[in-house]
Amino acid sequence: MKLPKQVRIKEVGPRDGLQNEPQQVDTGDKIAWINQLSASGLSYIEVTSFVHPKWIPQLADSEAVLSSIHRRAGVTYAALVPNMRGLERALNGHIDEVSVFMSASSAHNQNNINKTIKETYPVLKEVVREAKSAGKSVRGGYLSTVIACPYEGAISPEQVRQVADHLFNMGIDELSLGDTIGVAVPTEVEKLLDVLLPEFPAERLAMHFHDTRGTALANVLKSLEMGITTFDSSLGGLGGCPYAKGASGNVATEDLIYMFHRMGIRTGVEIDALIAAGERIEDLLGKPLNSRQMEIKRRSGGK
Amino acid sequence: MKLPKQVRIKEVGPRDGLQNEPQQVDTGDKIAWINQLSASGLSYIEVTSFVHPKWIPQLADSEAVLSSIHRRAGVTYAALVPNMRGLERALNGHIDEVSVFMSASSAHNQNNINKTIKETYPVLKEVVREAKSAGKSVRGGYLSTVIACPYEGAISPEQVRQVADHLFNMGIDELSLGDTIGVAVPTEVEKLLDVLLPEFPAERLAMHFHDTRGTALANVLKSLEMGITTFDSSLGGLGGCPYAKGASGNVATEDLIYMFHRMGIRTGVEIDALIAAGERIEDLLGKPLNSRQMEIKRRSGGK
Repeated sequence: MKLPKQVRIKEVGPRDGLQNEPQQVDTGDKIAWINQLSASGLSYIEVTSFVHPKWIPQLADSEAVLSSIHRRAGVTYAALVPNMRGLERALNGHIDEVSVFMSASSAHNQNNINKTIKETYPVLKEVVREAKSAGKSVRGGYLSTVIACPYEGAISPEQVRQVADHLFNMGIDELSLGDTIGVAVPTEVEKLLDVLLPEFPAERLAMHFHDTRGTALANVLKSLEMGITTFDSSLGGLGGCPYAKGASGNVATEDLIYMFHRMGIRTGVEIDALIAAGERIEDLLGKPLNSRQMEIKRRSGGK
Repeated sequence: MKLPKQVRIKEVGPRDGLQNEPQQVDTGDKIAWINQLSASGLSYIEVTSFVHPKWIPQLADSEAVLSSIHRRAGVTYAALVPNMRGLERALNGHIDEVSVFMSASSAHNQNNINKTIKETYPVLKEVVREAKSAGKSVRGGYLSTVIACPYEGAISPEQVRQVADHLFNMGIDELSLGDTIGVAVPTEVEKLLDVLLPEFPAERLAMHFHDTRGTALANVLKSLEMGITTFDSSLGGLGGCPYAKGASGNVATEDLIYMFHRMGIRTGVEIDALIAAGERIEDLLGKPLNSRQMEIKRRSGGK
């Protein structure tokens, strides 16, 4: 099996994770936690989202978080922005990279951001242009429901390819492909990448798997074998899509890292430091995290 | 990716699962549960173990179970036997297939069955010969700790090959390769199979993964890609090795089947019927089962 020597992990816990947690985390605690994450060796952290606080009250402290975290050298700090107002706030906060988002499925896009896919393009296009002219890199999207949609069922690779084409034409730097409802199996990942890889370079595609059905690491393996080297994950498997019923949990960063390291693939992350950050967020949320590494830690006499 | 159209699942829940449960299951309930398992379409069920009841009190009812379950046509009913006395009891119960067991690691073998590897061979050889002359097929072994040992660390593929060679020379029909402590990643599976497949036919090898670190389905994928078509699993991920600290849980049959079916690979199992059998054993054990399919069932308004 031909494997990369190194992969890039994009930690989405502070944004994609916390936005779905009923327990609000105090801003000071959140900042300390993000600092602990960057100290573990993660080179990319999506720290917050600049959507309207009405929609995601858990992330209403975006400005405070962005202005107060310790900016560690070599770490990219990113935020999700839905529109020009969000971008302005993110730029004011000196964000390194912004992420825009939409769905490959019309129905999920409509439910999630209240626009058709066609109506979404011009909004994203303006954000991408302005972000690029401000010298920022853009993840564009998060593209959700690339395998299946909770409303429409299976989404064809061709449909994903068309949306991806629009997004890359806008000037995005990287596309993150999300199995939002966590149904994917490796054959579906292969079919999707078979369509995308002839058109878009592997280095500009990231995979964003949810582990709802336990298949995330198998999907990561298939993606790796096909040349993908960037993976989104969330410490402790925090997160999921609030608009996709039954969806739960990004693949856990520490489980992903366990597999990579034992396969001889570097991530730059110190797993013990990451698990310590996991214990901190468990305390803050008042609940155990849902990952194998955290379970093992608990069973072996940790908390 | 070249995949088989069909795989064989060997359900080990009634033996490998229940033997580690503190909650004893009443014999009548156990029989009803096994009947429900066979009704779900599973074609192979390891129903019990003929070790001395002193060691595994949970399976002290082996004779009663074997004599009272409904023998569904097309289903192979198997049992673990440690020695000639166990074999005699299994044969009296008209077992279809017997499994012998040992470890690829000396230290684990010593701890688990109180013999060196060399001392183990003649015991197994006699059991295999007698079982074969009684017209039974033999799984020989369960070979434990094929990737790593809790006492010795990494086990080399060459060491596994040597033990496998002894076992096949005894006349076993199939070898089940166990990652007993659930540490394996796909590169290790590949290295092991790279050594074994040139010597032993893929159809005579089975993989027995524990999901302790969440890597079992990725390991199954790699095994599938390399031509393996037989997999051990346990409903609800029940089980683990009582002699390997920190080990927990076979890969869950229903999660394995979800992946296979969505990949277009037939198993013959009706997943809803299997989940219903999972709900029964949850009631009997008084605890929730640890699988994604059971979690989804609970969250979607089941129990």
